[in-house]
Amino acid sequence: MKIVALAGGVGGAKLADGLNRIDPAQELTLVVNTGDDFSLFGLHISPDLDTVCYNLAEIENPNTGWGRREDSWETISEISHLGGPDWFQLGNKDLAVHLERSRRLRAGEVLSEITRSFCRTWGIRANVIPMSDDLVPTIVKTDEGDLPFQDYFVKLACRPGVIGFEYQDSTQAVPAPGVLGSIRAADLVIICPSNPWVSISPILAIPGIRKELLAKTVLAVSPIIRGAAVKGPAAKMYQEMGITPSAAAVAEHYQEILNGFVMDQTDEDQAANIRLADPGVELLLTDSWMNTRQDRVRLAREVIDFGRKIIKERL
Amino acid sequence: MKIVALAGGVGGAKLADGLNRIDPAQELTLVVNTGDDFSLFGLHISPDLDTVCYNLAEIENPNTGWGRREDSWETISEISHLGGPDWFQLGNKDLAVHLERSRRLRAGEVLSEITRSFCRTWGIRANVIPMSDDLVPTIVKTDEGDLPFQDYFVKLACRPGVIGFEYQDSTQAVPAPGVLGSIRAADLVIICPSNPWVSISPILAIPGIRKELLAKTVLAVSPIIRGAAVKGPAAKMYQEMGITPSAAAVAEHYQEILNGFVMDQTDEDQAANIRLADPGVELLLTDSWMNTRQDRVRLAREVIDFGRKIIKERL
Repeated sequence: MKIVALAGGVGGAKLADGLNRIDPAQELTLVVNTGDDFSLFGLHISPDLDTVCYNLAEIENPNTGWGRREDSWETISEISHLGGPDWFQLGNKDLAVHLERSRRLRAGEVLSEITRSFCRTWGIRANVIPMSDDLVPTIVKTDEGDLPFQDYFVKLACRPGVIGFEYQDSTQAVPAPGVLGSIRAADLVIICPSNPWVSISPILAIPGIRKELLAKTVLAVSPIIRGAAVKGPAAKMYQEMGITPSAAAVAEHYQEILNGFVMDQTDEDQAANIRLADPGVELLLTDSWMNTRQDRVRLAREVIDFGRKIIKERL
Repeated sequence: MKIVALAGGVGGAKLADGLNRIDPAQELTLVVNTGDDFSLFGLHISPDLDTVCYNLAEIENPNTGWGRREDSWETISEISHLGGPDWFQLGNKDLAVHLERSRRLRAGEVLSEITRSFCRTWGIRANVIPMSDDLVPTIVKTDEGDLPFQDYFVKLACRPGVIGFEYQDSTQAVPAPGVLGSIRAADLVIICPSNPWVSISPILAIPGIRKELLAKTVLAVSPIIRGAAVKGPAAKMYQEMGITPSAAAVAEHYQEILNGFVMDQTDEDQAANIRLADPGVELLLTDSWMNTRQDRVRLAREVIDFGRKIIKERL
């Protein structure tokens, strides 16, 4: 089966990893958010892309979900000692990726090429593609003003109240080579349990992607369980924008493109509401926590089986 | 006494460190070569400036003379693993300096300001000034073509045969703030035992500096002992350019500006030649090896005493 998964940060990376690990291997393409890419020390940093790749390569920090396994911190400590900006945690191994990626970008390569090359080095089976080779910075509109995503997310630790989002320059952006083609060829598209606002919506804002998805069997996995985000500020964002954070809110977020929705079994009480709001959507209630690598593979398999069932029904 | 010392790489840094350590403290300004500055990974790297500062701050790698004490190598190893350029050894702590310096340069600060700030952090007593805030890249003209200095020095390990040197854009360069003023105010100028061609000549190529030196009591310490460079390619360069490498060759290099010359006592046989070539130059023969920090201070004291003697005689 040809699968395309859309993914952002840690939660998305976990399911992406599960999808990449199932046997027999599916033809998997991961389209990854780069709306959180930013520049620091003149380096191009792609946090979501790195989180996804590190997880797939099994070199991620298992404690944080982001950053590198067994990394060390001499460089950022010394930068801090020199009075430089130390709000973004740059491990030594992680830093190597930013340095080499930035060098290649400066030399004229595009992000998607560089990503393909890194994935080859890391022995990653799936085809990992950044959503675009163009810069599409996510701006978080808050009660403290418009903030570049990493300023909001890391520097200010998500404290400002969120009013809305802007996917800057998205209308002029072009999907990276392979993005539209892989969606067009896909049997199934899976939206990973990533933050809808800052991990998935940036991808959907790239011209052409949403339109391709409308023609496909699309599933989403809820990143919100019992009203709380498994990780990150998704629930806080919903709340601040006046929406009760819930699996139902996530389903509504994707309603236009959704054929199936995967939610945690503990959210069963919301199933009726979701069906009411979108009678066409099929639901899968399961254990959607991914604590171990086995959990990732199990959930990935369940999601794919659920997708197969929907595809059959739609024939 | 007001002292200005001109310094480049490891040998120069050792004497600079000695001059900085003597009691009672002299008013010391170090004018440091930046002709070997270069760009890698978009970072501005100033190897000589760092070597001098690290030595003065006593955070240098005592085994190599350059780089940081107890540094680690995760980042450059990972860059190497990703297929990136790994010919220039970037320790993690060293890298922090390049990152933060480059960030500040990009933010509009100039190298001399940044250097002053770093020296404050490192508790360095002397006033360390890069020769210029402008880029003046040393080009090594070789039998394999014109090479940027670090390509010749590190990437090609000084293998190409040297024909000559070019201090690119030096005619348009301006001495960094404080360089000319400190020389003008100096009682004594000391040329450290650095490579004459690639550490000191780049400084002398900055418009205005040589002219100021002509009016001063100037001493040089030979980096060549018994026909060999204590460290680095100086002797090899002399040879390839058809000049016998010797203390005498170094004295001749600086002849126009020199009042006194410090050479190793084992080179006594050359004293007559030097006096013959330049009857005006005074000689000090001493043990000029600097193996320990005590050696550095002892040599610094001898050089300053020698300078005092010459100044008195010139009155």
